[in-house]
Amino acid sequence: MIDRKKFKHTIQIRVRNYEVDWQGIVHNGNYLLYFEAARIEYLKHLGVKVDMKSIQGEGKVVLVRNEIDYESPAYFDELLEVSTRMSFIRDSSFAMEGIIEKNGGEILVARNVAYHVWLDPRTDRPKTIGDDFRKLVQAFESTDCEISWTSMNVW
Amino acid sequence: MIDRKKFKHTIQIRVRNYEVDWQGIVHNGNYLLYFEAARIEYLKHLGVKVDMKSIQGEGKVVLVRNEIDYESPAYFDELLEVSTRMSFIRDSSFAMEGIIEKNGGEILVARNVAYHVWLDPRTDRPKTIGDDFRKLVQAFESTDCEISWTSMNVW
Amino acid sequence: MIDRKKFKHTIQIRVRNYEVDWQGIVHNGNYLLYFEAARIEYLKHLGVKVDMKSIQGEGKVVLVRNEIDYESPAYFDELLEVSTRMSFIRDSSFAMEGIIEKNGGEILVARNVAYHVWLDPRTDRPKTIGDDFRKLVQAFESTDCEISWTSMNVW
Amino acid sequence: MIDRKKFKHTIQIRVRNYEVDWQGIVHNGNYLLYFEAARIEYLKHLGVKVDMKSIQGEGKVVLVRNEIDYESPAYFDELLEVSTRMSFIRDSSFAMEGIIEKNGGEILVARNVAYHVWLDPRTDRPKTIGDDFRKLVQAFESTDCEISWTSMNVW
Repeated sequence: MIDRKKFKHTIQIRVRNYEVDWQGIVHNGNYLLYFEAARIEYLKHLGVKVDMKSIQGEGKVVLVRNEIDYESPAYFDELLEVSTRMSFIRDSSFAMEGIIEKNGGEILVARNVAYHVWLDPRTDRPKTIGDDFRKLVQAFESTDCEISWTSMNVW
Repeated sequence: MIDRKKFKHTIQIRVRNYEVDWQGIVHNGNYLLYFEAARIEYLKHLGVKVDMKSIQGEGKVVLVRNEIDYESPAYFDELLEVSTRMSFIRDSSFAMEGIIEKNGGEILVARNVAYHVWLDPRTDRPKTIGDDFRKLVQAFESTDCEISWTSMNVW
Repeated sequence: MIDRKKFKHTIQIRVRNYEVDWQGIVHNGNYLLYFEAARIEYLKHLGVKVDMKSIQGEGKVVLVRNEIDYESPAYFDELLEVSTRMSFIRDSSFAMEGIIEKNGGEILVARNVAYHVWLDPRTDRPKTIGDDFRKLVQAFESTDCEISWTSMNVW
Repeated sequence: MIDRKKFKHTIQIRVRNYEVDWQGIVHNGNYLLYFEAARIEYLKHLGVKVDMKSIQGEGKVVLVRNEIDYESPAYFDELLEVSTRMSFIRDSSFAMEGIIEKNGGEILVARNVAYHVWLDPRTDRPKTIGDDFRKLVQAFESTDCEISWTSMNVW
């Protein structure tokens, strides 16, 4: 289960009017966009390059699975807090969790787990994630993220 | 697991240019929109009223969980086939599955399970789904959908 | 022509990755959404109620025309400044102008004029805009907005 | 003014639920997307290559101005007809017009003029549009499109 206390990175997103559907609530597809925007800010904060060149460069990261639980609706003009953490890094995959809260954390709006795989852009096959990425995450997450190190494979 | 043979309803969606991201592939958030558009066509096909009045009327259906697996990327102008089925109906909840395929079903693009709950619009609490909805689904899905009938509760 | 010096309200919007298209630049449809988000913040700043209840209440505002000039592309993660002003208020219509700039105002990204009409929600016909709206705008814009007062019609 | 009789290319678009806003009508930003989708189908129909490679190849087409008039609202699940025509081709620019209708052409929903400029991708400066493009348009539009030929410049 998602552990609230392990989240250390939060951005604010204000609900825009065109994100609200005919029921007067944020359309379910937009939460997924909020989570993604928050993951990018998280990675930038850690020092990971997130741009078109790096995406088309040595490693290509693809999203392979998204799980989203909708808990409470959000409304137009509400200020949402979107928190992100890295929950694990394995050989060629990693998972990021997100939560959206409102009213100063009182109300949980939605939860997300997004699973990613690192591909070799030449072959489109999974590729061992580099230690530089693991180090940036560990420096921020410390023991809150389960990281399996590639060097462990050596020993 | 999702069983391909149980899907009996399919719509076609052509990828529009603004649905493609900087990697040249359909942005992950759009698959979720495709699945939803297909669910609505499925429900209309079965004879379920899907409009603003019915949504604000006696029963209110909310999406509570989405699971999406991204299998292969889709590109601009490709013709996608989005298939939908109802996999189960319980007391106050139901699940719909979707798959997106291309190249005449040769390539699986994405899979989805969307869990819904029926709410009483006055109290926002789960409400037993009416038999009329179950009957419309059974007429189309026959034994492919696990339906628990409310009348069974009586016996 | 749009007069840069007359703009007194600015919000910041950071370009999100899913707003960028396959050319690596913000898709043209998103500028229109940025301008709208900025108009809503402008109206809120002036004290105008912008919510679902007021929209469905005594007066209904509809957008009747949009003109957008695209000057320079914006890229992922750039910080945009979106400025808004009311340029005129007539009997039942008003126009709002917007500009999007980046690099601290050095580069003009896009310009917009959005024409609105105030409708009577019962008849869907144009309705004279109330003086309370004009007063809120005048208090902010002073002589920078051409306002024709309904009371002038009386005299 | 836009001349209805000159339009010879029409596509159908069904309004999806997430394109409808809290007022129960299609959000203004979506018409712009419908017009663009229709322009791409129009160009494909004429035999113009519209793909990522051609866009990043010898000529790069950019949208420089959009004018949209909103005439009547469209609602969820309505079938819209979006018609497109090329109204003029000049040295390095061209304009495409669009109209959205419903109820078999009885109701005009929106009108659009989209102005484009052809750029040299190396210098990002306007470039004379090739005669091959003009020929494809003339073959379809005949005298309905004002085309100035580059060879005319020679004489």
